[in-house]
Amino acid sequence: MSAVAEGALASVVAGDPADPGVRQRAGAWLTRVFEPGDPALARWVAATGQVAAVRSLLAGTAPSRFAAQAAARGEDRSLADLLTAARIGARLVVPGDDEWPGRALHDLVVASDRQGGGVERTAALVPPLGLWVRGRPRLDQLSDRSVAVVGSRASTAYGNHVSAELAADLWSRGWTTVSGAATGIDGAAHRGALAAGGATVAVLACGVDRAYPPRHTTLLERVLEDGLVVSEWPPGSAPLGHRFLVRNRLIAALSRGTVVVEAAARSGSLATANRARELGRPVMGVPGPVTSALSVGVHQLLRGVPPARLVSSAGEVLEEVGSIGADLADVPARPSSPRDELTDVARRVLDACPVRIGVPPERLAAVAGCAELDVLRVLPVLELHELVERVPGGWRVTRDRR
Amino acid sequence: MSAVAEGALASVVAGDPADPGVRQRAGAWLTRVFEPGDPALARWVAATGQVAAVRSLLAGTAPSRFAAQAAARGEDRSLADLLTAARIGARLVVPGDDEWPGRALHDLVVASDRQGGGVERTAALVPPLGLWVRGRPRLDQLSDRSVAVVGSRASTAYGNHVSAELAADLWSRGWTTVSGAATGIDGAAHRGALAAGGATVAVLACGVDRAYPPRHTTLLERVLEDGLVVSEWPPGSAPLGHRFLVRNRLIAALSRGTVVVEAAARSGSLATANRARELGRPVMGVPGPVTSALSVGVHQLLRGVPPARLVSSAGEVLEEVGSIGADLADVPARPSSPRDELTDVARRVLDACPVRIGVPPERLAAVAGCAELDVLRVLPVLELHELVERVPGGWRVTRDRR
Repeated sequence: MSAVAEGALASVVAGDPADPGVRQRAGAWLTRVFEPGDPALARWVAATGQVAAVRSLLAGTAPSRFAAQAAARGEDRSLADLLTAARIGARLVVPGDDEWPGRALHDLVVASDRQGGGVERTAALVPPLGLWVRGRPRLDQLSDRSVAVVGSRASTAYGNHVSAELAADLWSRGWTTVSGAATGIDGAAHRGALAAGGATVAVLACGVDRAYPPRHTTLLERVLEDGLVVSEWPPGSAPLGHRFLVRNRLIAALSRGTVVVEAAARSGSLATANRARELGRPVMGVPGPVTSALSVGVHQLLRGVPPARLVSSAGEVLEEVGSIGADLADVPARPSSPRDELTDVARRVLDACPVRIGVPPERLAAVAGCAELDVLRVLPVLELHELVERVPGGWRVTRDRR
Repeated sequence: MSAVAEGALASVVAGDPADPGVRQRAGAWLTRVFEPGDPALARWVAATGQVAAVRSLLAGTAPSRFAAQAAARGEDRSLADLLTAARIGARLVVPGDDEWPGRALHDLVVASDRQGGGVERTAALVPPLGLWVRGRPRLDQLSDRSVAVVGSRASTAYGNHVSAELAADLWSRGWTTVSGAATGIDGAAHRGALAAGGATVAVLACGVDRAYPPRHTTLLERVLEDGLVVSEWPPGSAPLGHRFLVRNRLIAALSRGTVVVEAAARSGSLATANRARELGRPVMGVPGPVTSALSVGVHQLLRGVPPARLVSSAGEVLEEVGSIGADLADVPARPSSPRDELTDVARRVLDACPVRIGVPPERLAAVAGCAELDVLRVLPVLELHELVERVPGGWRVTRDRR
């Protein structure tokens, strides 16, 4: 993480808006001052730029509603929040950062543009002002190939089993499971991914320094070993009731699709499914016995208009959220392309390369289903044909091939 | 049942084709001589008329392929078959009879018209030449408001429970369950209907005098107390393997829609669902645990193109197959119709009246959810308004109201 810019906020944000320290201080202040959910604020900040928006708010030149909210939140805690984050191995990711999951959050930006001003509802589809991220992997990379697995807190042994298996199988196919770290289905999904040796992403409704629910303290520590804990609220923030619904839109946005494993009628996990639908992402449901109250909500989803897709395995989930083939679906077929002359291994590695973000050889090997040594052997060939290119973070498909 | 026409077949069918005894002898002979499944034969018999078709076959003036098949089947057993049927309380129902379920079988006639000649496949969508019916109720009436509930022979306790509950709940809403009397789901469905005091229809792949499977001998006896056992093969016919697939189209045709409760991948009950789909009838599936091999086939159905409809209760089944309201959906709304001036009870009784076949007051009471005395009280009012009319069998909506 870049050095935290110290000093009084006003003087810091007077600095170069491109300076990472300056941008971090501005973002940290914004996530502390504003509760997420106001489309008008999100639009104004995005249009103004975060550093300029903070300057404007401090100088009293911002729209009065926003300025009043900022003034009401009291003294600046941005430096303290950033230092707390650094102390626990967390970082703040803001728009413009390499790690900012811009592709995943783009649908929230679009949805927010369609909405009026003010906080219209707790679950407004508004992009976050910043994301506090704890853990080693890059959030943008994990969320690029991820599926949300959510469900009831009061799950059954069947639901726990299915969500754990699903998360494990998704990981074995190179896909990350995103969930909300709640008891029941969420926890089982995280545990399933972990048991398969996989990374998983827990999106919290409180600060990333807090373990909520408390019984998941150990689980969240294990998530942090290879995965990520994410929140749009700064360190120390409490898991206030309304934040769970707000958080649900992020679970939906940070994944390619949402699977509901068990849900009673009117379960909160159905709200996450609705957010996913509103974002145009696939909504899926795992059926269960019609005699189980914990499957009633899922069956309602599967009978909805439009109906959610019934899935019973990781393979069926990936049919919906797009496989490697679908990632490359935009590549038009050409007669006698260099691709035709590739070996089977080279073609599989090429298919494993993402179109946007570079990934390291070990990830390519996992996705392509071959040895890392094979990947290292064929990458130069693929580069020679200008099929892949090296970027920070690893390899990706070259721009003109997409 | 009308008197059986005795005497040599050739002289009998030389009689009046409108005479019930003559028609029965002709129909009995046809069901003995031809295995069902030949669209060209079905079309020829329908176009010629059954009595005339038999005459033509006996006189050697029929198309040679049909004549050859008839000749190969040896001596006439039509009188013996009809006498056997009479002895066990069964009857033969042929096209043109009041009891012939013409509406239900109409889709088979249409489908058969779309197909070429010859036996193209064992499951060809061909109407039966006749139906051997054992039991008291009228087949046309029971099949008019019926749902097929089918599934695997190797069912689980869950599947048995669900199909029994479904059949019982359907009966309590005035709907009959049709199934194939097999072990597993079929048997559970029949038992559920019986436990609710309901009539149920078992469509067999052998003669109605035979109990197949043998372990369902008692079950079939109980079905006969209030319901029907039906077959297109004459008494004594054996449950030959290929006949089950042929029979499945009749289960689909004699019901408004088909529900598959449990089915492994490639289960025979999926064939019944496919026949229902081909006939344009709703196909429904009851989901189960994704961990159960006995639900894999159902889940495939629910993920099919087009997907079957997920149902978890009798109410959801009736949403698909059409409720009383849907029966009357063709009645255009008119400003200030006589209907508007009816009492609530009268309107419910009117809604309970079928459009085609007359039903007795006790049935109207059950469907309308009121006392039989109320029905008898409001029927004259409805007749006065020319909203209902009396026909053999009971009351129905008047023709010009449909």
